[in-house]
Order: sequence, then structure tokens, then C-alpha cells
Amino acid sequence: MSKIAVVLLSGGLDSTTTLAIARNERYDCYVMSFRYGQRNKVELQCAENIAKLMGAKQHNIIDIDLRTFGASALTDDIDVPKGRSDVEMEDGIPITYVPARNTIFLSYALAWAEVLAADTIFIGVNAIDYSGYPDCRPEYISAYQEMANLATQAGVEGPTKLTIRTPLIDKTKTEIIRIGTALGVDYSLTLSCYDPDVDGQACGECDSCVLRKKGFENAGISDPTRYR
Amino acid sequence: MSKIAVVLLSGGLDSTTTLAIARNERYDCYVMSFRYGQRNKVELQCAENIAKLMGAKQHNIIDIDLRTFGASALTDDIDVPKGRSDVEMEDGIPITYVPARNTIFLSYALAWAEVLAADTIFIGVNAIDYSGYPDCRPEYISAYQEMANLATQAGVEGPTKLTIRTPLIDKTKTEIIRIGTALGVDYSLTLSCYDPDVDGQACGECDSCVLRKKGFENAGISDPTRYR
Repeated sequence: MSKIAVVLLSGGLDSTTTLAIARNERYDCYVMSFRYGQRNKVELQCAENIAKLMGAKQHNIIDIDLRTFGASALTDDIDVPKGRSDVEMEDGIPITYVPARNTIFLSYALAWAEVLAADTIFIGVNAIDYSGYPDCRPEYISAYQEMANLATQAGVEGPTKLTIRTPLIDKTKTEIIRIGTALGVDYSLTLSCYDPDVDGQACGECDSCVLRKKGFENAGISDPTRYR
Repeated sequence: MSKIAVVLLSGGLDSTTTLAIARNERYDCYVMSFRYGQRNKVELQCAENIAKLMGAKQHNIIDIDLRTFGASALTDDIDVPKGRSDVEMEDGIPITYVPARNTIFLSYALAWAEVLAADTIFIGVNAIDYSGYPDCRPEYISAYQEMANLATQAGVEGPTKLTIRTPLIDKTKTEIIRIGTALGVDYSLTLSCYDPDVDGQACGECDSCVLRKKGFENAGISDPTRYR
């Protein structure tokens, strides 16, 4: 019997590597992305290309409107911070944090998992290089999993238990790039920049670009990112 | 300082009573409803009227598309079951269950609560008269609250902890109607029917109508519902 997983995919480096890991474990991957008023529209085009090329069984793009709630540089007209040092990045929760974003994303994934009878959700959160986001921490994911198993029909009638897999949660960007490269991920298809131009060229200066650049450097792998 | 709460309101009897309870406790109520492809459109009109009349600070109607996932008589073209006995209603999870619905609703409420710096979310779930829904049970709500406090900026930096209040969870329909009536709720504004006509007249025969009817009878309060 085939194993079924819902895989959250933003089109960035981490979620694409996560999809490669799920595929490598022979899951049938049902890929889910979100159009949530992000300023970065090119990201979703990347997600579509990646889902297709990496053999997703289905790619579901959900429209949700987080702009209702405002309060983030990724959805509002607040400037994305650039050129920050490691120390500055580690200082508190960044302005690019979107309220309850992973909680909303996982809730849609949970609904789809229930309908598909999937027993696994993959999400590419990372607690090392983005430690400022509360909803990327292992204790959050484990609390989410516990809640999810009480929320659903499968959880009540069981024995199918839902697992939320976060294969990258304790990995550095360098390790992630090495894992993905070993699995054949073509990182030129991915976009990590918080502030790309319309052609999908990265700024090279936002927190996300800086971490990605350094990751390729440290991995000793040539960086295929198109910088403007 | 004013107390701020996000209150989930469907326009039905339970959520309207919950709003009355929150208002009675002097919360500033930020009311949230969802357009989720429910067949019952009149319900949202009821929610709008109720929010306005009951002094909501703001009423936010969120568009979400649960039809993507199918699998419920409330969103699909499956017949709503009618004329079922108590025993039949207690047998398993009803077909009107929407996958992960409360989890998705609470996740949006959580995002809004974080932006508003609200420390309370009110939801009118009930574990007595709807015991078939997994996401109406106290253990689910308490797991959700634990997860929510790990998910957000407030939870990390806090002392502000988020509480999910379910004042009706252990009440019978009769008790709920008595509480609401004592707080001055006009139940003629509410709609509980799973299958109303376009004028908002109730069928009188679905599980929800049957429970509501019996509630008014047992409370000895005259039923203002417009049946067709």
C-alpha cells in the first residue's frame, strides 16, 4: 500500500528539500502552497514548477488572506530589513514574522490529510537559522501534533495517528543544502529572497538571502541563485 | 484597561449565546465569522445582524474554501440527514462534520488575537448535544490552547497567555437557551438549521433543528424559530 503525505511547499530552499526527502522515502506527495498576500509572487511560480518536476500527485494552492491581520513585512508595506549581522538576526522575533502563519498552514494541511487519509504532514521548518519564529520550534510542532490527533475523525476512531515530520528542524542551512544536493534537488528552481524583483532575481541582502549565501559557501557547493 | 476577546460567531444559537456571555463579562468583542462554502448562506446574514445588534467592536468575515477538501454534507451536495432519533445522532461522527473546521477557525482567531493583543478567544462548542464532533471535546480545546501559547509572539515573550473559553461546552441545549434568555438574547435572530430555505426558514427536521426544538420545549421558553 502506498504511503500518503501532505507536503507544505513555499518554493524556497527548505520546503523544496523537505519535498525531496518525502519523495526519497517513497511517499505519494500531495503538495500544498498558499497565496496569502505575500509580496513575493514569484515564490508561488517556483512552487508550481517544483511540484511538477518533483512528481507531486497533486498541487493544491489555497487562497488565504492574511492581510486582514496586517503586522508583517512579508505582507505589508513595511521595508524588509537588509544587511543585518548574525547578532541582529538573533535578536527577538523578526518583523517578517506573519501572525500564526504556520498554525493556519498546518490546519489546512490537516484538513487535506484527513480527507486523503494521509498519516504524515511534512513541513520544512527550521529552528536553527530562523530561531526568531515561535512557530518553528520543536515544542510548538509537538503540541500541534498532539492537538491534531484530537481534532480529527481518524484521531478519534484511530488507529491511524497523524505525524508531523520536520526533517530539517535541527539542521543548519549548510547541512540542508548538502542533503538536498545529495537527493538531486536543483536549487536554481527555488527562491528564498524576501524581496525579489519581478523576474525572480534575489536581492542578496535580506536575512534569508544572507543565510542562503552563507549556506552554499560553507557547503562548498556553487550557489545557483540568480542575484540582481 | 479594557479586556479584548475574539469571538467566533456562526449566527447559530450556541455562538450567539457565547457572544452574549463575553459581552456580559465586559469584553470588547471582536467578532469573526467564516464564508466557507457552506450551503447555508442565510447563516452569515444572521451573524452580521447579531454582531451589529450585540455591540461588536468589529466584525470580520473571512473567506475560506473548505470545498477544496469536500467530504461533508454542509459543503457538498450530500443530503442532510433528517428525522433521526437520539440514538442515531449519538452513533459516530455525523456526515455534517467538516474536516478540521474548528482547527482552521481557531487558527484564524489566533492570528487576529495576536494582532489585537487579545488574551481570550470565545468559541461556542458543545460536547453534550453534538458529541459526534471530535473538535468539540474539552481535551481537543485544551490541546489547542497549549499549542496556541507556543505558536505566538505573545506566548514566547509573554506574560500574556491566551485562553480559549468554551462557556457552553458542558451545557445542554436547554441550559444554553436559559442562559441566553437571561442575558437578553433574541433567538429569533439566530439560525441553527442545516438546511434552511432562502428566506431563512428552518426545516424543523435536521439534527440541529430537532435539538433546538427540544431545547426550547424543555426550557419552557416559547420557540421563536420560523419553521417552513
